Amino acid sequence: MSKYFVMKEKDVIEYCKQQNLFPSDAELNCIEIGDGNLNYIFKVTDQRSSKSLIIKQAGPVARISDEFKVSPDRNRIESEILKIQYELAPGLVPKVYQYDLEMNCCVMEDLSDHKIMRQALIEHQQFPLFVEHITTFLCNTLLLTSDVVVDHKRKKELVKQFINPDLCEITEDLVYTEPFFDCPRNDLLDVTKEFAKQELWSDSNLLLETAKLKFEFMTNAQALIHGDLHTGSIFVKPDSTKVIDPEFAFYGPAGYDVGNVIANLIFAYQNAEATMEEGSQKSDYQNWLETAIVQTIDLFKSKFLSLWQQKVTERVATYPGFAQYYLDSIIRDTAAVAGCELCRRIIGIAHVKDITTIQDVSRRAAAERVCLSIGKRFILERNQIRTGADFLNIVKACQDAALKA
Amino acid sequence: MSKYFVMKEKDVIEYCKQQNLFPSDAELNCIEIGDGNLNYIFKVTDQRSSKSLIIKQAGPVARISDEFKVSPDRNRIESEILKIQYELAPGLVPKVYQYDLEMNCCVMEDLSDHKIMRQALIEHQQFPLFVEHITTFLCNTLLLTSDVVVDHKRKKELVKQFINPDLCEITEDLVYTEPFFDCPRNDLLDVTKEFAKQELWSDSNLLLETAKLKFEFMTNAQALIHGDLHTGSIFVKPDSTKVIDPEFAFYGPAGYDVGNVIANLIFAYQNAEATMEEGSQKSDYQNWLETAIVQTIDLFKSKFLSLWQQKVTERVATYPGFAQYYLDSIIRDTAAVAGCELCRRIIGIAHVKDITTIQDVSRRAAAERVCLSIGKRFILERNQIRTGADFLNIVKACQDAALKA
Repeated sequence: MSKYFVMKEKDVIEYCKQQNLFPSDAELNCIEIGDGNLNYIFKVTDQRSSKSLIIKQAGPVARISDEFKVSPDRNRIESEILKIQYELAPGLVPKVYQYDLEMNCCVMEDLSDHKIMRQALIEHQQFPLFVEHITTFLCNTLLLTSDVVVDHKRKKELVKQFINPDLCEITEDLVYTEPFFDCPRNDLLDVTKEFAKQELWSDSNLLLETAKLKFEFMTNAQALIHGDLHTGSIFVKPDSTKVIDPEFAFYGPAGYDVGNVIANLIFAYQNAEATMEEGSQKSDYQNWLETAIVQTIDLFKSKFLSLWQQKVTERVATYPGFAQYYLDSIIRDTAAVAGCELCRRIIGIAHVKDITTIQDVSRRAAAERVCLSIGKRFILERNQIRTGADFLNIVKACQDAALKA
Repeated sequence: MSKYFVMKEKDVIEYCKQQNLFPSDAELNCIEIGDGNLNYIFKVTDQRSSKSLIIKQAGPVARISDEFKVSPDRNRIESEILKIQYELAPGLVPKVYQYDLEMNCCVMEDLSDHKIMRQALIEHQQFPLFVEHITTFLCNTLLLTSDVVVDHKRKKELVKQFINPDLCEITEDLVYTEPFFDCPRNDLLDVTKEFAKQELWSDSNLLLETAKLKFEFMTNAQALIHGDLHTGSIFVKPDSTKVIDPEFAFYGPAGYDVGNVIANLIFAYQNAEATMEEGSQKSDYQNWLETAIVQTIDLFKSKFLSLWQQKVTERVATYPGFAQYYLDSIIRDTAAVAGCELCRRIIGIAHVKDITTIQDVSRRAAAERVCLSIGKRFILERNQIRTGADFLNIVKACQDAALKA
């Protein structure tokens, strides 16, 4: 019989004592601070020393909805991937102290001096070091887990270790399938539904492309990806960026992670647009966001090629032209994935606060249409999208078209 | 401690008695009939009843060369995949009676009334049912293990079960890497080496394409492929075709299997060309082979689409245009893989008897150049190759060019 049970705050204090996680004279305080969908997050503080840590426990059923049953094995995956990411990108993910296979919980660094990036962006805070940090995280975790660098036998063992059927199914359904038809589980404004019908659901070219992308997601074991790298999975403070919650990790297309970052910066950008006073100048914050979108792509590309030169071990990957071909395919996937994410957060079951907190309904509806228009163009034009400027130009073109309409 | 040891013939007889594989009064006779590189194959016959079976044991080290150490786990993979293939394509693979995890051996149907197809082709025998059989085997084993049909969680468990690092490494090295540079382990005629230098090794476009193909092989978990489907892995008699030796099986590109069949029919075709009397008419055998090449592609395509209609379960795979897109990509991969196989069997360490048994050295050298020329065109022109006729036209064009040279 398994000893597993879902802990309450008092159980967590007991657990800390059993595991000797604090000095014996500690005066422990515990609060559950989770607001995610899949897990319980406990912050435990020793009130004598002020030292603290986080205990993250996987619940038996995903909280997103009772329809998704996800195995607590995701917590093993998360702990193991965090250790790998910590080695590849030191300082850019929380440190894991220990993992308990039986209780499906993980003891890790407390980052509560950081803020969830989505919230900080809704407050229009700028993070001048974010692009530098996230592009390092992306290059290191993606390229350094690929067949370009890793011994191919070792890579295959990693593929096996991170097969992740439950969490991949969520992405396959919510990102690649349901947003592209009138699925009962979708959740969207009536006006947005009309727009989706006309612009997305009846466009057979677009549907065909989303089918290709879904199969790409299911079959392309390119890199050990985070798998859910939106701004709610990033902790920030001015001098620090920490990527958290990698429970969706598996060997998938590298562009999946880059695309999620880009799409979620675009949601923040729509939030800024929708909340600015009409006729006013673009704010510093908006300018910073524009630069962040462009630079996330361009700095990713330059760091990626430079890291490739330093770390490549596979002979055929040194053939002239191959690094550029490989990087081009990641940027193409990045555009497509950003497109899917932009559509699914508007149409599907899981929304983003950047959009849902826009109070003015007509402004929110306009922002949603812009997101869907950008998403569609990113998917359809992915073979022509190459630079950060290409991404931003499409964002602006869709924004301008919406203003004129 | 494992009880595993490499059995001799007398040990196999003892093993059959222990396992009660025959009646207690059986008079057993055993001979080792293996001529492969990786395993020991014992045929055990009860001389009283004439009933027989095959015991296939994995040796601890691949016999292809002491440089390749392949885990005996390949025998587990082989037994498990044979069971799956037997369900998907009944009658087209040998029946497995039992598998012994400890002794790494598998007890299976005796097919010694069949002949290895490569040998039969060298003897210029025709098999009018072969195309019908092999295209059914290919469609059923490839499409019915893909995400088009299989529940995606189940498919991911299969991916995990058939991760095959040792055997994949052999393919990655011998098929995708070594034939395309002056690798010390290559083994080729001096005249062929000159041709390879000029036509392949110095062609940077070709090299770049082979790099893309190697990564495709390493990352595209499309279907549960056989992984080594040359004519030495096929048993034939006039009314029966049995695909054997699936120890290279893993989730890879579906076109890998189709391409290997095509390339090995082309080797047989070169053998027929090289051994015909100069100036003589094309033989019935050559005509049959030409038809076999064309029909293997065309019948595969029509059966694949028809099976798709019957069996598709994935919603997005029913979008208009997707089945054709998917099939086109398999045919493109087929051409590329056939191209790699044509090159690697001429240049690399593992040759085919169709070519090495051509006695006349200048005719053998000519046949080798034709194979390399076809291989190069298949790789470079794979996006334009669509039909069986497209394949055969390139074969004939390269043949004609060689005659004129």
